[in-house]
Amino acid sequence: MAGVEIISASRISQDLGVQHTQVRKDLAMTGAQGTPKVGHKIDELIHLIEEFLSWNQTNNAFLVGVGNLGMALLGYEGLMQSGLRIVAAFDHDPSKIGTRIGGIKVVGLDRLSDIVTAFPPHLAIITTPADVAQGIADRLIESGVKAIWNFAPIRLHVPSDVVIENVDMRSSLAVLSYKLKQKTKSCVDID
Amino acid sequence: MAGVEIISASRISQDLGVQHTQVRKDLAMTGAQGTPKVGHKIDELIHLIEEFLSWNQTNNAFLVGVGNLGMALLGYEGLMQSGLRIVAAFDHDPSKIGTRIGGIKVVGLDRLSDIVTAFPPHLAIITTPADVAQGIADRLIESGVKAIWNFAPIRLHVPSDVVIENVDMRSSLAVLSYKLKQKTKSCVDID
Repeated sequence: MAGVEIISASRISQDLGVQHTQVRKDLAMTGAQGTPKVGHKIDELIHLIEEFLSWNQTNNAFLVGVGNLGMALLGYEGLMQSGLRIVAAFDHDPSKIGTRIGGIKVVGLDRLSDIVTAFPPHLAIITTPADVAQGIADRLIESGVKAIWNFAPIRLHVPSDVVIENVDMRSSLAVLSYKLKQKTKSCVDID
Repeated sequence: MAGVEIISASRISQDLGVQHTQVRKDLAMTGAQGTPKVGHKIDELIHLIEEFLSWNQTNNAFLVGVGNLGMALLGYEGLMQSGLRIVAAFDHDPSKIGTRIGGIKVVGLDRLSDIVTAFPPHLAIITTPADVAQGIADRLIESGVKAIWNFAPIRLHVPSDVVIENVDMRSSLAVLSYKLKQKTKSCVDID
């Protein structure tokens, strides 16, 4: 796409494999107007999408749970590009406390409430095992956190004024398993 | 919920915070009939949902890319409960090859095509960096893989007969950022 300055909704639809009407709806939500029969200026469109998704702002976040998944997030540069800066990570494991991962310091879980209260972040990321996730969420919310990105495989209960977004890999796996089953079925039908 | 034998769609709706009509639609898709004004027998419902999602079958999978995210998946017991058994993991890092993670052997990436061809799995999981993911997907598909669960932050192009499910954490983050922005906006409006 290098050198291209204008793009149409049809072309976006084709490239992403997303329905044309959906692309039009999504673009309309960002406020993009475009020129009929021509398309959208790409740089304007990028700016509008980034603004819509708050990617042009930076949200500071604390991460709780420095296991493999936590480490994957700490090392993932895509987050910073999407406007999320992890400023501290918490864990209870003494061998991890005091170390730095991807430049981010790991702090003892016993200091969670104090630090969150003193430096309230926009959001917190939970990458702990399921059995401790609710307790961590409660402590974060008590200390003032208003948004939680939850990777623990459990549905967290939070007050209605707290924003929560769950990443449950099992849901995605369920979709994949279902698609695979449908595909296998239709193959059997053909034979 | 211990001891409860029958559950209504309303109760499920309430417990999960999902709209009542959505719960009814979802239950109907599994073939669950229930008794009007009473509800569904929980054990029957679990069986129907597991069958619908293929959680009562086991899909064998290969995983490619033993970084932090790959290791998180190799160590995640929830996958096995959801009917996914990772039978081998591949990486190019000599310090990882030959080791076992969560009981699963790490094999050199140079043996990928041979092993996939010899023991075709139901699906493959890609947890590599974005820049090598398409090449890995191509090799997997050439060797007979029919379903890919992609965690690399890139949209993969696959033939129409291959099932693909992308887990892009940035999409989830975008939803969270948007919700947080709306919440902040409405607070400002109130003040």
